[in-house]
Amino acid sequence: MRIAQIAPLFERVPPKLYGGTERVVSYLTEELVRQGHEVTLFASGNSKTAARLIPSCDVALRLNPIVRDALPYHMIMLDQVRQHAGEFDVLHFHIDYLHAPLIRDMADRTVTTHHGRLDLPDLAPFYAIFPELPLVAISNDQRGYLRHTNWVGTVPHGLPRDLLPFQSSPQGYLAFLGRISPEKRPDLAIDIAAKAGMPLKIAAKIDRVDQAYWHDRIEPLVKQHPNVEFIGEISEDEKAAFLGDAAALLFPIDWPEPFGLVMVEAMACGTPVIAFRRGSVPEVLTHGVSGFIVDTADEAVAAVARLATLDRVGVRAEFEHRFTVERMARDYLGIYETLAASRRTQQRVAAKSNVRPIGRGMQVPPLAAVSKSNGHNGAAKPTVRALSAGIEAGSG
Amino acid sequence: MRIAQIAPLFERVPPKLYGGTERVVSYLTEELVRQGHEVTLFASGNSKTAARLIPSCDVALRLNPIVRDALPYHMIMLDQVRQHAGEFDVLHFHIDYLHAPLIRDMADRTVTTHHGRLDLPDLAPFYAIFPELPLVAISNDQRGYLRHTNWVGTVPHGLPRDLLPFQSSPQGYLAFLGRISPEKRPDLAIDIAAKAGMPLKIAAKIDRVDQAYWHDRIEPLVKQHPNVEFIGEISEDEKAAFLGDAAALLFPIDWPEPFGLVMVEAMACGTPVIAFRRGSVPEVLTHGVSGFIVDTADEAVAAVARLATLDRVGVRAEFEHRFTVERMARDYLGIYETLAASRRTQQRVAAKSNVRPIGRGMQVPPLAAVSKSNGHNGAAKPTVRALSAGIEAGSG
Repeated sequence: MRIAQIAPLFERVPPKLYGGTERVVSYLTEELVRQGHEVTLFASGNSKTAARLIPSCDVALRLNPIVRDALPYHMIMLDQVRQHAGEFDVLHFHIDYLHAPLIRDMADRTVTTHHGRLDLPDLAPFYAIFPELPLVAISNDQRGYLRHTNWVGTVPHGLPRDLLPFQSSPQGYLAFLGRISPEKRPDLAIDIAAKAGMPLKIAAKIDRVDQAYWHDRIEPLVKQHPNVEFIGEISEDEKAAFLGDAAALLFPIDWPEPFGLVMVEAMACGTPVIAFRRGSVPEVLTHGVSGFIVDTADEAVAAVARLATLDRVGVRAEFEHRFTVERMARDYLGIYETLAASRRTQQRVAAKSNVRPIGRGMQVPPLAAVSKSNGHNGAAKPTVRALSAGIEAGSG
Repeated sequence: MRIAQIAPLFERVPPKLYGGTERVVSYLTEELVRQGHEVTLFASGNSKTAARLIPSCDVALRLNPIVRDALPYHMIMLDQVRQHAGEFDVLHFHIDYLHAPLIRDMADRTVTTHHGRLDLPDLAPFYAIFPELPLVAISNDQRGYLRHTNWVGTVPHGLPRDLLPFQSSPQGYLAFLGRISPEKRPDLAIDIAAKAGMPLKIAAKIDRVDQAYWHDRIEPLVKQHPNVEFIGEISEDEKAAFLGDAAALLFPIDWPEPFGLVMVEAMACGTPVIAFRRGSVPEVLTHGVSGFIVDTADEAVAAVARLATLDRVGVRAEFEHRFTVERMARDYLGIYETLAASRRTQQRVAAKSNVRPIGRGMQVPPLAAVSKSNGHNGAAKPTVRALSAGIEAGSG
């Protein structure tokens, strides 16, 4: 197929450091190329890819000190997409909702993966206006926050099989990897490690908005606990050792995590995950196999004591069975193909009845069948939860 | 003409409190309706207008506590504009650059007024991609920061003639009106008033980003100086008395102010302005007639002593001559009509040569002639300054 992947411009594809969305776009793009598809990647100019690259800025925006406003560059990208749109069988967007007005007349040739949280009040009025946009969720929990939209599938993220090697004999520390921010609860991780009597290593970036939280809340805890070591932001190369050498990854989140790629990264190393029951966690982890799902810090401490009951080989097997890039690419290709077939059907019907085939108000049929290959995570089940009145107002 | 005005959704049109862009859009819209044009206003649902209103959200976004992200609502608006685009002779955008990719194929039926600062590095690469977009500046100084773009005119803002009544006998205080923020230099206003031995009244909003600046820098100065009174954010109704009763408005700005509507509001009341020589100031004020243009705080103190040499009737006359909404509407109608004539010419040429008339790469001729009615402010002069390497990195 002729496929366009449209990535955010904040990070390189793949990112040098932090950046979940751009990392997943990279894995998917390279796998599609490997399978022989004709792929074009719209991304920052310093991206590395085997696909054709159409750059919308010289270097990725987050680490470019002269950039003050990211939107103009994304407008440039949308214009490039508009110019080249006719060349593709499918255009796969990863930039939230920015493209919606522009692609009205070709919505049935597009797929949009939402990588962020959807429990924010501003998206419901938006999708009331754009009901036909074919959307893909990265977990059923994420999908549940937006009901009356054209969901065409749930596709959990996947990693290249050999990206992070299996590590059978870890060292005796707990790991925390990601961002220092209130919803990631590094304070709870410190508390759990202290009570469990285990060393904790924290590898995390600190965004500008989280500087005060770091200084006021977390840095004092790090200084106070001799068992806690803060490493800072680590590169992709350092991740394998950091995660692989850990006895477990702590993931004590306090927000509706839409996916949580780091859980899968730990699993690839054979490292089990102790995670709080929020967002996607019950879909990603198999309790008692790839880790423990807990509801309180005390349960997390108890879970640390039971780590020896888990088999690291079994953790890695879960990764290989459910979270490889091959599985992710297979899921997406299924969606691309179902959309193309649906379009051909509509065109034949339209040709017979002489009605304009595509455009506003078009309905793509729900693609429940598409997600069958997702394995254990129940992605094909129509378990969409209602957009409840009790949505939390945490930061995104 | 059939005219669309596309306003930002942050404030009502017109705003209840602060909000320069939405206020100017309102003045222009109502004047065009008054002159018999068929005007459609795209704006927030609680806007007040004699034009046809197409709302993109129920209430304006800034004062709506549930809103977290303004972009989805602007995407809804762009889609509404797209649907209705065929109904208009001209579409006049006031939303920066958000619409650029969407209107490629009808750029020659659009005008975009830039209301903000243009000295930011992210706009130059943007306009390299969208060189054909017809742009209007609100001062020649603002225009000078972007060179290689399709400037079709400079149109200074205007106010309804009877909005703010002339006040011949003011009280003896100096006024500061606007935002508490470092680039507006309320600290300098306090310093100038203290040295001049005059009372100072400050009417200003404090944005969340400026809370620390207020608490750390300005609030202590207000408490320290008994001659300074802080009033807070005032409504449109209170403005006439606040400005009209002042002996002068202080405008000690420290940024490239693109226009400075408050200067014109003061002039409408007959109140002279003491302003620093930055941004648009020399285009708006006539030194020795409508106020004094200064370079230092000491010069400002000396200017206060010379206020008696200015005639308030003369200040009001400057307003009536140069900054009424009739003059602003006349300028814009001239631009709309020149664009329409240019389009008709291109269509005739294209019909003869059988070439596609509009779209990418189209060049609208520079409309230097259009701005002739601007009066004293020299808007028609091609005084475009180079985008210098020494651009300041102040806040926007």
